[in-house]
Amino acid sequence: MVNFELTREYIENLRSLIAGKDEESISALLEELHPADIAEIYEELTIDEAKFLYFLMDDDTAADVLTELEEDDRKKFLGSLPSEVIAKRFIDKMDSDDAADILGELDDDRQQEVLSHIEDVSTAGDIADLLTYDEDTAGGLMAKELIKVKENWTIPTCLRSMRRQAEEVDEVYYVYVVDSDGILKGTLSLKRMLLSPVDITVKDIYNEDVISVKVDVESEEVSNIMDKYDLVALPVIDPVGRLVGRITIDDVVDVMREEAEKDYQLASGITEDVELSDSVWIHTRARIPWLFIGLVGGIFGSRVVGGFESIIDMHPQLSFFMGLIAAMGGNVGMQSSAIIVQSLASGSLGLDTTWGKLLKELLIALMNATILSLLIFTYNKIDGAGIALTATVSAALFSVVVFASLFGTFAPLLLNRLKIDPAVATGPFVTTLNDIIGMFIYFKIAQLLFALLY
Amino acid sequence: MVNFELTREYIENLRSLIAGKDEESISALLEELHPADIAEIYEELTIDEAKFLYFLMDDDTAADVLTELEEDDRKKFLGSLPSEVIAKRFIDKMDSDDAADILGELDDDRQQEVLSHIEDVSTAGDIADLLTYDEDTAGGLMAKELIKVKENWTIPTCLRSMRRQAEEVDEVYYVYVVDSDGILKGTLSLKRMLLSPVDITVKDIYNEDVISVKVDVESEEVSNIMDKYDLVALPVIDPVGRLVGRITIDDVVDVMREEAEKDYQLASGITEDVELSDSVWIHTRARIPWLFIGLVGGIFGSRVVGGFESIIDMHPQLSFFMGLIAAMGGNVGMQSSAIIVQSLASGSLGLDTTWGKLLKELLIALMNATILSLLIFTYNKIDGAGIALTATVSAALFSVVVFASLFGTFAPLLLNRLKIDPAVATGPFVTTLNDIIGMFIYFKIAQLLFALLY
Repeated sequence: MVNFELTREYIENLRSLIAGKDEESISALLEELHPADIAEIYEELTIDEAKFLYFLMDDDTAADVLTELEEDDRKKFLGSLPSEVIAKRFIDKMDSDDAADILGELDDDRQQEVLSHIEDVSTAGDIADLLTYDEDTAGGLMAKELIKVKENWTIPTCLRSMRRQAEEVDEVYYVYVVDSDGILKGTLSLKRMLLSPVDITVKDIYNEDVISVKVDVESEEVSNIMDKYDLVALPVIDPVGRLVGRITIDDVVDVMREEAEKDYQLASGITEDVELSDSVWIHTRARIPWLFIGLVGGIFGSRVVGGFESIIDMHPQLSFFMGLIAAMGGNVGMQSSAIIVQSLASGSLGLDTTWGKLLKELLIALMNATILSLLIFTYNKIDGAGIALTATVSAALFSVVVFASLFGTFAPLLLNRLKIDPAVATGPFVTTLNDIIGMFIYFKIAQLLFALLY
Repeated sequence: MVNFELTREYIENLRSLIAGKDEESISALLEELHPADIAEIYEELTIDEAKFLYFLMDDDTAADVLTELEEDDRKKFLGSLPSEVIAKRFIDKMDSDDAADILGELDDDRQQEVLSHIEDVSTAGDIADLLTYDEDTAGGLMAKELIKVKENWTIPTCLRSMRRQAEEVDEVYYVYVVDSDGILKGTLSLKRMLLSPVDITVKDIYNEDVISVKVDVESEEVSNIMDKYDLVALPVIDPVGRLVGRITIDDVVDVMREEAEKDYQLASGITEDVELSDSVWIHTRARIPWLFIGLVGGIFGSRVVGGFESIIDMHPQLSFFMGLIAAMGGNVGMQSSAIIVQSLASGSLGLDTTWGKLLKELLIALMNATILSLLIFTYNKIDGAGIALTATVSAALFSVVVFASLFGTFAPLLLNRLKIDPAVATGPFVTTLNDIIGMFIYFKIAQLLFALLY
């Protein structure tokens, strides 16, 4: 199978086939494609074109494509379908975790309606169960489909039961071992089953060292655990230790990608999770909040600078270096907070205390500040600037670099303790605060040194 | 098994056990821990303490711990051991991909020395093979260990062969099907094997739709493919289609995490991959390059502003809003480039042409610019600023927002075409350029409007 690459020609060809209602050619095209590819194509089509495609797919493919769509597109598409079709053609064909995720995007009434159309009560019950968990926890990530065996079963009993259970599970990574109360005891790896003789019981060969999480563990921690221990599946237990579901790596990869994208966007001052393909309006809405904060910050900054009007009046060259001081403060602050934000996200904050971290940051800052202020001092000397200006710019750069480093380190740690996403700290918020305080430091030093040296 | 959390007390207790050479208690502690946890502990110890621990572990655990260590710590540790110990106690116990990764960190002579101490020629050959691939490609990510069966085998033949092969493979996700030339034909899922009767041949039940990559595909693309198609393992083929290895999801999760961290750090102006626990010197070295560029940019900026000295002399209030204009330009530019950088990284750039993207960005920019310049206009009016200053600040903000949006969109696309990592574009480089050009626009507009309106 050649990997598919979507081109403009492909879409145009498909559109003309749809316009001509050429069902046979379209079905042939669809059969060659992976659901993820069909989902990509779907995003380039109108709702009506997409619907036409849908009715040419078999149920399993249609359900998979729906799972792969972007949330906005999926909502629009489901909005145009009756609840019974959603239940029978989509939800009933999905793994319980995907079914719950998609139902969770609908409003409560619609959820109930769809669930009432699912024939198998235990399937509907499983999905309803999953809907009760917060989507950012292990419970929200897990699926109910898994293969489990009892510890006192013999291998032939296991195999019979596993054959039956495997029909409902997409991929089998581990077989979980539980006791008669359903308490998770361990795992039986498939490799182990391949290598073992058939005449012993589960108890003798299962692996007791199983890492599990409780249903209420946050998804970021779930992803850190699976990453650290290189797991492809992680069992989820209830508060008394009973096995209630399993999380697979593909769901966690999505969480990791989303977390990383969100942190990156926050650092860049974008408040909503946006995709390039979203509308102009969504992009504007995602960007304007931070720009507004930046504007308010800029206005405050202008008032701070305005307070020093008399010295600027006398020494307008001071204004030449405002940009340099502000920008360096911003850069240093961003560097410092980025390191802390990443350590917080990956759970690798280490054992140093906050004071220890600030002390280390101070050393780094002192080194950088010394190098940078020597450089700017040399430049201003060579350029023939007056001694007061030269001294002011160097001293201010030194102070601002040190201040911004400590502030950049402290801010995300503080936000984290206040339960606010520390990634906010690398965004324009801290940059803006840095700017204002940087300007104040700059002109205060100027007042002092110009009075002394001029 | 309770999940392990490292505390300061734990480390202190362990250190005193090491100091007292209490081998028995230490062995008991180590037995309870996962290699990833031991690696975490190791990073808090001195080399001598860590060595003491090493000689108390069995070979498999020691090899796993080595794989989990940070690269710097591993290099230091291996540097203190003879090649024969590295070969027999570590490399020989590892999967071929981990072995190649770790050998790849040593210099060429040392690599040869270590390889010469590995007894099994085919193991040494596999590792030497893997060492020839660029580490950022599919070849560099893959392991040689996999389970394959021939398409004309019967199920009992398969099972016999698989039992033998499984002994060398850690986790079995898929069984690959090849023809008599070793060309990859498809996969046989373990679930399918559980469900199938034993009296048919592979040919009848294998799945032909297998997604694979060539050895020279870049790792970023490998991770996008595995993410898009929700794969846990991906077979790798040579240029003629023969199966040569497989990539597992845990390796790709590491790639994704590193990519995301690198992009985030670049956006924050950090040039090396640093961890919070790295030394003050490494941190300084990672930060100073961008700070230096920022400083040079700031100096250029000061000269640009200096060129407008006469108008600042006459109207010093112009300097009050320099910070606002520069910061807004920086913020907008960051937002725009962040979206493009993410789309490039995830391969979701869509089908729009560069012109289409710039046009869309222009619309977003015009909306934001209009809102922001109206706000600052209103503020200055209420604040009682003169008409020339009010008009200058509004018009400059409008122009700078539009310019920075387009520049922020264009820069990463251009860098990408020039094969430079586009994440650089969200870093201080573009912010600095934006600052300088923003200042030029601001004072040019001021010259024009003050001449006209004052």
